[in-house]
Formats: sequence, structure tokens, C-alpha cells
Amino acid sequence: MATPGPVIALRWRDGVLRALDQTLLPWREVELELRSADDVAAAIKRLAIRGAPLIGVAAAYGVALELARDADALERACEMLATARPTAANLAYAVRRVQAAVTSATGEPPAEAALAEARRIEAEERSASDALAAHGADELADRPRILTHCNTGALAAPGRGTALAVLAELADRGSLELVLATESRPLLQGARLTVYELGRLGIAHQLLVDGAAAGLIAAGEIDAVIVGCDRVAANGDVANKVGTYPHALAAAAAAIPFVVAGPTSTIDPACPSGDRVVIEERDPDEVRAIRTGPGGDLHQLTVAGTPCRNPAFDITPASLVTALVTERGVARPARGESVLGLLPGG
Amino acid sequence: MATPGPVIALRWRDGVLRALDQTLLPWREVELELRSADDVAAAIKRLAIRGAPLIGVAAAYGVALELARDADALERACEMLATARPTAANLAYAVRRVQAAVTSATGEPPAEAALAEARRIEAEERSASDALAAHGADELADRPRILTHCNTGALAAPGRGTALAVLAELADRGSLELVLATESRPLLQGARLTVYELGRLGIAHQLLVDGAAAGLIAAGEIDAVIVGCDRVAANGDVANKVGTYPHALAAAAAAIPFVVAGPTSTIDPACPSGDRVVIEERDPDEVRAIRTGPGGDLHQLTVAGTPCRNPAFDITPASLVTALVTERGVARPARGESVLGLLPGG
Repeated sequence: MATPGPVIALRWRDGVLRALDQTLLPWREVELELRSADDVAAAIKRLAIRGAPLIGVAAAYGVALELARDADALERACEMLATARPTAANLAYAVRRVQAAVTSATGEPPAEAALAEARRIEAEERSASDALAAHGADELADRPRILTHCNTGALAAPGRGTALAVLAELADRGSLELVLATESRPLLQGARLTVYELGRLGIAHQLLVDGAAAGLIAAGEIDAVIVGCDRVAANGDVANKVGTYPHALAAAAAAIPFVVAGPTSTIDPACPSGDRVVIEERDPDEVRAIRTGPGGDLHQLTVAGTPCRNPAFDITPASLVTALVTERGVARPARGESVLGLLPGG
Repeated sequence: MATPGPVIALRWRDGVLRALDQTLLPWREVELELRSADDVAAAIKRLAIRGAPLIGVAAAYGVALELARDADALERACEMLATARPTAANLAYAVRRVQAAVTSATGEPPAEAALAEARRIEAEERSASDALAAHGADELADRPRILTHCNTGALAAPGRGTALAVLAELADRGSLELVLATESRPLLQGARLTVYELGRLGIAHQLLVDGAAAGLIAAGEIDAVIVGCDRVAANGDVANKVGTYPHALAAAAAAIPFVVAGPTSTIDPACPSGDRVVIEERDPDEVRAIRTGPGGDLHQLTVAGTPCRNPAFDITPASLVTALVTERGVARPARGESVLGLLPGG
């Protein structure tokens, strides 16, 4: 069913931003045609476009779309797009960059200045993804069977993504035999999105429930684990999608590499250690029910009203991280000095 | 919605075996009325009655039901019931015991001899559950917030079950504050059955996805873990529902007790260690889809035809098991000698 070839989550063509509607994946491949800042903000709000770096780039193009309709719309468009999601740092960063580029442009029409800056941001993200992928593939060159968690590919970031970009690069180099993808409850990004991307890339893969990973690692069926990251503390502790930490424990017990991949922008030198990261507790309905199918129907899994715990992230201590792979190189082992040394000026 | 009070999965009344239809839980409480060996075998086959010890007792009553209809049906009924599920050791054991009791009965009508033996088997299982619960509660007396995995209560075994019986006993003693129940993908026994039982027992509880347990343990929000077991090797390694091992790793890393509860019949002295246990690989559709609601509708979670790994169990090494709790006492730590010492004659 799926189109063969790498996923293209966003593309600009003929003055229109085209975005794969991620709410319909893997069931239907529908490309949205976004023609205004309103269109882009709405797509971001309803998670048709998701993944912090991808949202940032989409919003940057959104400013350009709006300025082509109304050359005086800069402030309004930037305000609307920067607040489309509450917490994504990349979103505000990208919108601010476009705003500054338009404001400082001399002679160039505002829409063209915005589009040029959006293209620059996207190009920077793409080359960061490629650099990260190359560094990561060097780390895991002799590891044919690799487990990954959640979704960290082209649906989450421009280019090939982070951890999934490393896997794609290993596949290109011919050393990857099999990717084991955890389903990643509660939101099933592994089952829905990573499996879809691996299929598009033609990479052999198997899906498993989250709880099955540790046993397969202990049984010697997995040669390495690679995951993305949401925040890396100054001491190297890693906050990532809930369910990451038990994979790290199992990898350490089996003495296989546990590699974390992410751009240096996820390193937070102001956060001393993982226990200082506030873990978002999300809606209990994500645990009580499952949303599936192109209609997004909600199916109850338990007794109505059951109290739940639903932390969105967990913390993997730096001591369990074999290597932190970024676009600027690798911290191996991932400890305070090696991690901070990756930062510009570090 | 649910009836208050402990779950009664099976009860004999007025010559009829009444069984709670577990396929409809937690959505509907329907008691089946089983009047023949055929009725019982059908209920076992379609998982309306599940849990190895519970199946054994149900089959024992099934022999009695059939003999009340036809005093010459012993061989046929025993054969049919013993083969209703392929691998449950308790099933064949219970049926053989009833068969022997009827064959050796002198003067007593066959149906009455069978019923008396079925009642004896059930009573033995109930008192084993109570003894196990008392031993386990002694172990965890000072642990108010306890995590459990899968379903190990009255829906799986006569009496109060195994690990869940320990939790019920702790609640009776007043020391239990909160049970954290993992959903236990792929078949969601935690979300569907354990949450239901805890509600019936009036025990405060929270449901979480399997991957969230390790992070909550590391964050100091859980004081102990207790699970059941499918097989315990002679060296103390434990085979249990997939997803158990990562909880044990997290408990060890946080230095909280990881307790395994099961009858001594699950100790297999012929199995030297966990790596000799053959792990059943189940239907990939359990991973690709989720079955929910009283109609048991199947909802796809991923790309159609995605290859899956679906091991039903994992192995927790004895080194991670703080204590093995049985009806005959506790092995603490659970090592070869202490474990085998629990066996009759050990």
C-alpha cells in the first residue's frame, strides 16, 4: 500500500506547503496542501504535523505563505504560529528567525525573505540529520540487529530524523539486518509511524510490545539499542519517551551498546541532572483507551474511570548511556564533560 | 457497575457449575451456567475460564457434571476435558485425580465421588492460596505502594490467587496504600482483569502502560514489585508473563524488593535454569491489533502484515528475585537450595 522510498513529511512546491497528514498514518497517505498561516497552525494543532523540529520548519514556511497573501501580516502570522503548540522550543525559535530575517531584509519582498529563511532552517536541519546519521552509523557499524523505541525518523524531524536516521544510514551502508521496533504505548508511535517509515525505507523490521524488549535483549537476539532524546542534562542523563529506561537497563545487563541520538539543541546545560527534569503527566485516557484507524476511533481497554499514571517520559541515567550521538560528534561515554564538550564553544 | 466484594470465578450450586465469563470482563459480568462436560470444555476452549489452576478445578467439576447425566461417561468426559487446552499441566492433573477417585470409589455413585474429589481439589487450592497470601504479606508488611504485572488473582486460580492474593491480604491487614497495575500488553490482562479485581476488592489502584513502570520505580514512587510465575527453574530463575524481567531490573536498580509468588507446583526441579525454558512465541496478530469491548472486536494498530516478535514469557534471573513466596513458605533469596527446599520432601 505505502509509496516506496523515504518519507517526505513536508515539501514546498509552487507556493504551497505540502504535508503528509500524520493522523492518518499508517492507514492512509494523504498530503495536505497548506496555503496560509492558518492552515499550517491548524495542521500543527491537530498533530497532522508533529515532532518538534518538523513543527519549527513547518511554521517557518507558514510565515512565508501568509506574507505572500498579505505583505503586512508578519506580526500576526508569527504570533499565531509560535503559539500553535505550547511547549515546542523549536517552534518559537524558527518563527523568531524568520521574523528577524524579514525585518532586516532590505529591498527583498517580505514573502521571499521569509521563504529563503525557512529554506535555510530546513537545510540546516537536513544536514544536521545527515551528520548525526553518519556519526551514529560509525558507532554501530558491527551491530546487525538493533532495537529502537518510539518514532525518531523523517516524520519527526526534517531530513531523516535522529535515531531512525542512523538506522537508515546503516541500511545504506549494508550492515543492518533487522530493526526491532517497540510499539511505544500509550500513543503507539512505534507501531504506527516507525513501522511505516521502515516499510517505506525497505528496511527489514519486526514489531514487538514494549515489555518484550528486555527479554529479547537478554536472550542475545539484539545487538544494540538506539533511541532519540527529548532533553539531555548537563551530566548526561537523558529524558526520552516513557519506556526508554528499561531498555537501557536491559542493554547494560546484556553488555550491548545503548546509544542516544539527538541534535546538540537537546542538550540543556542549565539542567544539572535528570532528577531535575519535570516529567509531563498526560491525559489518563491515553492509558485507558487506544485510538486506532484513520477515523481515530477510541477503544476502551479497562474499567471506565480507572485512575492512571501516564508519565510521558522517563530518565535514563548517564551511566547506562554508551554514547550520545549528535550532529557535532559523539560523547562516549556520555558524561558531563564529554556531553558539554559537544556544544558550540564547548 | 461491578458487583462489590471479591470475585468468585467459579461456584458449584444446585448441581450446576457457574463460571464468570472472563471474555466479557471488565465490560459485562455474566455468569455462565455449565451443565455438562461439553459446556465446561467449550468454556475453557474459548477462554471464558482461564488461568491454569482455575481450569483444572473447572474440569474436575466438569467430570462430575457429566457423570450426573450418564454414569458411564467417565472415560469420554475425562478425555474431552483433559485435552480442552493443549499445555495446562493442572488440567490433566485435576482430571486424572477425579478419574482415579471415581474408579476407586466403592458403593458411592460415580457423580458423587467425582464431585467430592473436585471439591477437595478446589479446597486444597484455596488453602494453598491463603497460606501463600499470608507468607507474602509477611514479606511486604512495610511496603505501602506495590506494583504488579499481568493477572494473578481470583480470575486465574481458586481462592484469591497468587500475587494478587498477597495484595488482598496486605489490604486486609491495613498496610497497603496503592497497587500500581501494568496493562500487560499484548493481551491486557492487567488493564482488563487485575483492575477489575482490584475494584471489586476496594483496593486503591492506578493503571499504567508497561513501559512506565521502570521510571516510576526509579523515581521512588513504588516500594516493591510482586508478580506471579509460570515456571521456576531449579536454580531459582523465573519464567513469567512477558514484561516481568524489566520490572525486576528496575527494582534491583532502585533496591526495592522484587517478590515472586506461586504455588510449589510451579517449581520445576527438572529444569536446571531459565535459559532451558522454551519461550512460547504467540500469534503476531496479538501485537498487530488489540481486542477490546464485550464483542471482542479487533482493532489494527500498525501496517497490515507487519512481521512481529511475540514471546509470551521472559526469564528473570534468580539474582534479581528478592524472595519466592509459596504456600509452603518463602525462599529468600531465591537460589537453588532455598527454592528446592520448598518442595515436599525438599
